[in-house]
Amino acid sequence: MKEQEYELGLIGLGTMGQNLLMNMADCQYAVVGYDKNKSKVDALKEATRAYKITGKYDVPSFVQVLKKPRVVILLVPAGKIVDYVIQDLLPHLEPGDIVIDGGNSHFTDTNRRIEALKQKNIEFVGMGISGGAEGARKGPSMMPGGKESSWHRIQPIFEATAAKVDGEPCVAYMGQGSAGHYVKMVHNGIEYGLMELIAEAYDFMKRVLKMSNHDIATAFESWNNDRLESYLIEITAAIFRQKDALTKSDLIDVIRDESKQKGTGKWTSQDAMNLQVPVPGIDLAVAMRDLSGYKDERAKATDKLSGPVPEKVTDGDQCSLDDLEKALYFSFVITYAQGMAQLRKASTEYNYQLDLATIAKIWRGGCIIRAAVLEDFRTAFTKNSNLENLLLDDNIAASVNDLQDEIRKVAKASIDFGVPIMAMSNAIAYFDAYRSARLPANLIQAQRDFFGSHTYERLDREGVFHTVWGH
Amino acid sequence: MKEQEYELGLIGLGTMGQNLLMNMADCQYAVVGYDKNKSKVDALKEATRAYKITGKYDVPSFVQVLKKPRVVILLVPAGKIVDYVIQDLLPHLEPGDIVIDGGNSHFTDTNRRIEALKQKNIEFVGMGISGGAEGARKGPSMMPGGKESSWHRIQPIFEATAAKVDGEPCVAYMGQGSAGHYVKMVHNGIEYGLMELIAEAYDFMKRVLKMSNHDIATAFESWNNDRLESYLIEITAAIFRQKDALTKSDLIDVIRDESKQKGTGKWTSQDAMNLQVPVPGIDLAVAMRDLSGYKDERAKATDKLSGPVPEKVTDGDQCSLDDLEKALYFSFVITYAQGMAQLRKASTEYNYQLDLATIAKIWRGGCIIRAAVLEDFRTAFTKNSNLENLLLDDNIAASVNDLQDEIRKVAKASIDFGVPIMAMSNAIAYFDAYRSARLPANLIQAQRDFFGSHTYERLDREGVFHTVWGH
Repeated sequence: MKEQEYELGLIGLGTMGQNLLMNMADCQYAVVGYDKNKSKVDALKEATRAYKITGKYDVPSFVQVLKKPRVVILLVPAGKIVDYVIQDLLPHLEPGDIVIDGGNSHFTDTNRRIEALKQKNIEFVGMGISGGAEGARKGPSMMPGGKESSWHRIQPIFEATAAKVDGEPCVAYMGQGSAGHYVKMVHNGIEYGLMELIAEAYDFMKRVLKMSNHDIATAFESWNNDRLESYLIEITAAIFRQKDALTKSDLIDVIRDESKQKGTGKWTSQDAMNLQVPVPGIDLAVAMRDLSGYKDERAKATDKLSGPVPEKVTDGDQCSLDDLEKALYFSFVITYAQGMAQLRKASTEYNYQLDLATIAKIWRGGCIIRAAVLEDFRTAFTKNSNLENLLLDDNIAASVNDLQDEIRKVAKASIDFGVPIMAMSNAIAYFDAYRSARLPANLIQAQRDFFGSHTYERLDREGVFHTVWGH
Repeated sequence: MKEQEYELGLIGLGTMGQNLLMNMADCQYAVVGYDKNKSKVDALKEATRAYKITGKYDVPSFVQVLKKPRVVILLVPAGKIVDYVIQDLLPHLEPGDIVIDGGNSHFTDTNRRIEALKQKNIEFVGMGISGGAEGARKGPSMMPGGKESSWHRIQPIFEATAAKVDGEPCVAYMGQGSAGHYVKMVHNGIEYGLMELIAEAYDFMKRVLKMSNHDIATAFESWNNDRLESYLIEITAAIFRQKDALTKSDLIDVIRDESKQKGTGKWTSQDAMNLQVPVPGIDLAVAMRDLSGYKDERAKATDKLSGPVPEKVTDGDQCSLDDLEKALYFSFVITYAQGMAQLRKASTEYNYQLDLATIAKIWRGGCIIRAAVLEDFRTAFTKNSNLENLLLDDNIAASVNDLQDEIRKVAKASIDFGVPIMAMSNAIAYFDAYRSARLPANLIQAQRDFFGSHTYERLDREGVFHTVWGH
């Protein structure tokens, strides 16, 4: 093809970048890739001979083949690398060009970059992309932010390449500024929460219900055919079926129990604290990933700290697998509700003007947290776009109300057996706290006034009060 | 007195500043105060006529009366105000002078200010002070950081004014840089944790054990005579005895159940996440303060979300007040253990070289989290300065092992009654997770490798592995 004929350029030719380019080519777009690492450009060219895709070995020739005004998407690791890539790219761009950051950048970096590029009349779009390598190839869920006019210019190619659910593309304009990256960050926070809950369900199956890996796989497969239907449950079932090539045993049993992280769950919790939105399910998922890293200490602690004496495990009615399924569904809903409440608060604080029904809609397909239940959430937010918390929707409320006996039973059994299901137990505690018209926070205010003269408010009259305590 | 005869100057004449000056004067130090607000200087002069204290109305005359090299302590709100005050002060200082920030500044601000003032050869000491207005007057607990040589110059006046326990002053050099403010931040994080636990114990007494305020006061008084002996338990008892001047009813019942915060607990959680240290007790204390703020939503949720049906509350053995006391002590120990583990990690990461035995020592008196149990922690860290976690000390381990039946009983009862004790329940979950040589984190790593090719490690051999899942 001649110069200025390629419709989109992509920088960062990892598996995801290569797959996204092939996806776009499938949709009849001519696209070009660039990577600092020449072997990745070679690999792209080799893999995509049959496609309208080319690769370039340097920035000027990469930019040169792009249609004007240009569209360049970056798929590089978050952090300083994004700034370096922009710095390399900028001298070759012109006013009106659009740069899209498709990585997991922190939303404050995105705000900074929008401002910096505005000086040069370059439009910067922070776009969260979820779905991993497979999603990129077959259709990811995408969350673009920035100027709405930028979105309209790039809308066709991204709607074409996005996942579809019932014919609707899993991409939509989120809001101005860093809205796209913020929504993706909370998506990942919810992902941390759901993964922790599934891991706890596995621990309960293994240590309390004494199930084999085979039976665990069967359980997740069966759950995936019902209300828990979701990508994470689906791959969990597959994981328990996987054999290890080296030992021929079940692969799950040889994987070291230390979970790593790239930080997006942590960012979600940290910013929730800044916004004063409680998301304890996500906080605890982060804490448990951290605790998993203390493997040597845990091994020592096993010898020092004893569990409940088995003879004392006398909780009459044993939990069933069915109880656990209900407990997991209950805690899934609580985790989504916390994340959605955070988005609602962020929307006001950061002036994103998010539409939660749209977010539930584009999360139904392509992304890691896609799940059948998102259709219910979309319905709830469509019915009432100002819904403060999913738990206040009549249908959602009815469904969690109905499942509480089972999650209480499971949480109590975990205490009896000394098998921690920290996030799942917290889901019922959050439910009980959220539905408490009165919490004991009055005592905390009294203590703060006692030792720090921080004052308190009253229930029976307006104003701010201070007491000289003990008199 | 003549010029250059005052040994210390204090900026920020709130109750705490005025009290600290009077405390210093009691110890025979000549001190001078300054505040931008002239009425506060007047108030100081009026209140301290009998003392070797004076007040000044402007910075130059305040600085002029100080002995050289000068020592100035700031007791002003954290944030930009500290920078403004330093900016006003700096032109009047000389190389070798010491500026102490006695507020709750974020440790990263302290690092920045140390560097900035080093350019002018001014020594900057970040010093956490705990104890509130009363502590400032009678002897606070103080946590200074910075250069050790700066500490030695100011050591006499602060050792004289600090709280004493068994003749030992509750002040000691913490470490270089922002070590003092970091230790104070975690002190406050632990404070948030303990306050939440006490509030939950109150809620349990009220809603599960159906106790009156009078009986609650009596319970806390009695607990304060035993292993739970601590400042926070002591003032809690007093709070439940307090009558309301307006309504003559118990004051606790008219205080609005929304707890506010100034941010130090949040900072503790946020930095624990950066350091990858799990402190879920503190995270949940922050989350519950945040949730308390959603009072309108909670009122709505009461109508939508139902609790456990009373008929189903059949947990045979009813909890006693004695069980609750044991559960509270257990969870106190867990909370301190989490905070101390954070300090240990921070000490390495930030090169503070903290001595945890010294920290336990100076927290025994003067500060808000002072408690009899700190003597046990001091003993544990004295015996083994490299102790990874308090729960690995034989004596501490034995004490929590012995109390686990009761906290399990209390946690289960709270689930049965639908009365959330989120942080207390989490204490037993943390205990069970920490003593788990195997956690289900292997599943999380498998999921991450499945959807994101993030790789995993194995239990049976070294290296980093990736699987093409489902094949």
